[in-house]
Amino acid sequence: MAFETTIEISFGDCDPAGIIFYPNYFRWFDAAFQAFLKTRELDQHILKEKLGTIGTGLMDAGASFRAPASFGDTMTLRITGIEWTDRTFRITYEGRIGDRVIVEGFELRGVFVKDGDRLKAAPVAPLKDLVGDLAA
Amino acid sequence: MAFETTIEISFGDCDPAGIIFYPNYFRWFDAAFQAFLKTRELDQHILKEKLGTIGTGLMDAGASFRAPASFGDTMTLRITGIEWTDRTFRITYEGRIGDRVIVEGFELRGVFVKDGDRLKAAPVAPLKDLVGDLAA
Amino acid sequence: MAFETTIEISFGDCDPAGIIFYPNYFRWFDAAFQAFLKTRELDQHILKEKLGTIGTGLMDAGASFRAPASFGDTMTLRITGIEWTDRTFRITYEGRIGDRVIVEGFELRGVFVKDGDRLKAAPVAPLKDLVGDLAA
Amino acid sequence: MAFETTIEISFGDCDPAGIIFYPNYFRWFDAAFQAFLKTRELDQHILKEKLGTIGTGLMDAGASFRAPASFGDTMTLRITGIEWTDRTFRITYEGRIGDRVIVEGFELRGVFVKDGDRLKAAPVAPLKDLVGDLAA
Repeated sequence: MAFETTIEISFGDCDPAGIIFYPNYFRWFDAAFQAFLKTRELDQHILKEKLGTIGTGLMDAGASFRAPASFGDTMTLRITGIEWTDRTFRITYEGRIGDRVIVEGFELRGVFVKDGDRLKAAPVAPLKDLVGDLAA
Repeated sequence: MAFETTIEISFGDCDPAGIIFYPNYFRWFDAAFQAFLKTRELDQHILKEKLGTIGTGLMDAGASFRAPASFGDTMTLRITGIEWTDRTFRITYEGRIGDRVIVEGFELRGVFVKDGDRLKAAPVAPLKDLVGDLAA
Repeated sequence: MAFETTIEISFGDCDPAGIIFYPNYFRWFDAAFQAFLKTRELDQHILKEKLGTIGTGLMDAGASFRAPASFGDTMTLRITGIEWTDRTFRITYEGRIGDRVIVEGFELRGVFVKDGDRLKAAPVAPLKDLVGDLAA
Repeated sequence: MAFETTIEISFGDCDPAGIIFYPNYFRWFDAAFQAFLKTRELDQHILKEKLGTIGTGLMDAGASFRAPASFGDTMTLRITGIEWTDRTFRITYEGRIGDRVIVEGFELRGVFVKDGDRLKAAPVAPLKDLVGDLAA
């Protein structure tokens, strides 16, 4: 019911300890979010046109690394939920290798628009309408 | 009094919105931690010899993005603290551009050793002894 | 007949000009090579055991960027050939988006073994035997 | 006399063989080029304004890896030359650790402008005038 994508863990994703260099998990979270948007026929260009946003930028991000993984492993990365508030939305992720959860994480994002020289978080309702239910 | 390093934000660190692609912050956190170890004449090879560890792996990581930054900016990244428990240590980071804080984050790490096919977190006291005070 | 893999170009793979940040192509070349090894039930761990190598390291690499590509594009990346000499092998790559070639590149690799403190390139024939024909 | 920058090779820049994951060299080439532009008070924003370009994009890139390097090493990366033709310029790089050359590489770039839906390489003379001599 949730959005799911598959990551082949490659040699170059791993560090000298032989395990995934952890910033890559965040790269994959972002890629999963963008791939999820694509299932809605959305991307950052289209959001710019439709919502006048400069992007669905990050406010906060975090991850818990439950078990190590290495090259040759195949990770299934799922978006397990999206929680909307007025001016933020929080996407939760779970990565598994087979049955084993190796990472859980989240991104807290806003819909950013220009406000003079600065950026400000606009209401997310128009994005929520475009995205619809995660399970749809 | 804390450890500090300087990051020149480059064109390739930024995304199509023109701002830092956020997984890079975690790459820089890790690099700052490794550079901090170097000030103690430590690195992952030496820790392996001295502590029998496979590495100071991550359990948890997170960051709050306070303001956007772009290429051409120079970020000062500081380790603002290290908190030690029995089997974890938590490093806190703060990134500034001039006077403006743009990112705050943390890494929760353990000292991992092999336990058959798995990894387990060993006591961190021997590492703490090697590292000493952040302010030293 | 050749090995082929698919890359979904993501937002984070692109730079502020909105096109792929070029070092990513080399990351994908390496990942394609490692994925190709996997089709032979080989990886760097197995090569270490079978050939005593520390890795199939790079001697040379290059790419020609024929046309730009951006996020949302799907690239088909093919290994178009492997040429073997005594102590090197050269892998050629071609990336297409639809019918359009966007990148052509190569990696010249050796099978590296330790020689005291240094690395040296060993004969590649044992690897060639393990890998067999590209088209197989 | 040439432009020079310093790279601290970090743990996360290295692969499971313990040496630099080679696409990082291209990331550093690009960063060195952008840092060189900064010494001329130029960046991609300013070039866009002054030259109407969407960027100094890549046509070709290559590198020869002379010796491995690992975390803890400090690389001095130099721009050793810039060769200008009508619609391209070629930047050559050399990376050393101490006295030892570990990498030599190049980037062939153009000054790209929009031409309908496509990009085309414009004359580079205006950029050459802005940049001046490498040794200046």
